[in-house]
Amino acid sequence: ARPKVGYFYTENAIKSYSIREISNKKVANVMSIPIIIEENVSIHSAIVTMFLEDVGSIFITSNKYLSGVVSRKDLLKSAIGNGDISSIPVSMAMTRMPNIICVKENETVEDALRKLIEHEVDSLPVVQIEKDGNNEQYVVVGRFSKTTVARLFMEILQN
Amino acid sequence: ARPKVGYFYTENAIKSYSIREISNKKVANVMSIPIIIEENVSIHSAIVTMFLEDVGSIFITSNKYLSGVVSRKDLLKSAIGNGDISSIPVSMAMTRMPNIICVKENETVEDALRKLIEHEVDSLPVVQIEKDGNNEQYVVVGRFSKTTVARLFMEILQN
Repeated sequence: ARPKVGYFYTENAIKSYSIREISNKKVANVMSIPIIIEENVSIHSAIVTMFLEDVGSIFITSNKYLSGVVSRKDLLKSAIGNGDISSIPVSMAMTRMPNIICVKENETVEDALRKLIEHEVDSLPVVQIEKDGNNEQYVVVGRFSKTTVARLFMEILQN
Repeated sequence: ARPKVGYFYTENAIKSYSIREISNKKVANVMSIPIIIEENVSIHSAIVTMFLEDVGSIFITSNKYLSGVVSRKDLLKSAIGNGDISSIPVSMAMTRMPNIICVKENETVEDALRKLIEHEVDSLPVVQIEKDGNNEQYVVVGRFSKTTVARLFMEILQN
């Protein structure tokens, strides 16, 4: 007879090594490419960018530094409003700093996942912090989303 | 000295049991509540429902059976189009059967996750199949989304 308990024990030990390994991975190693536009771009252009890039959120910058995030939900709300979305800047539709949940490159997958769930957002900008006099400014270097999480989960199962 | 290898081995075995257990769970045990509207409802009403329920996709039925799925992306496309979204039915904006990726209640989390990733969708309707003469009709009983996956991943890490 096959030694079932031992067999499964070994399989489990391999699986579990993977999940711990993956949840401890740095965000920098799993993040995807961020889609970024400047905040004076029109809401209509932001919508076009969202379709072309097929993303759920776009990160918005002011003079290269993170100033906001705009989601499909934000854009949908603007699109059914009364304004002329070709002339209104995306900054009027976005969620603004400092109300943006960010993650740093050296945080772990587990840290990022916890932020996604606790703050009920679909994606996080991955940022590097730069000192600008006494202020801290965020440079967006990546994106960590629920899609990232789903892919990592699949990776664990396939290992 | 602490027996490190043995210690981690035990921890890993516990973790790994969880991931296998969770990925083998039936979709019925992890699915969330589906948001469903009939296909003659206007696109504008569908958008309002999406905001009220705070979901990324709505499942569309014709005479109680699944006929389509409408996403934020579909609604955004309609909203920036030229039509009068208060009078156009949501059936004009949705993806139609049979082009809907579904999952059944007795499929596993792993099956559902694979469908999400392979078909690049954010959520799947969980369906029960009913015979309607020679046709099969789908009754929507739940929703399995990337949020479901993120929560399950977190559950594994917290175990």
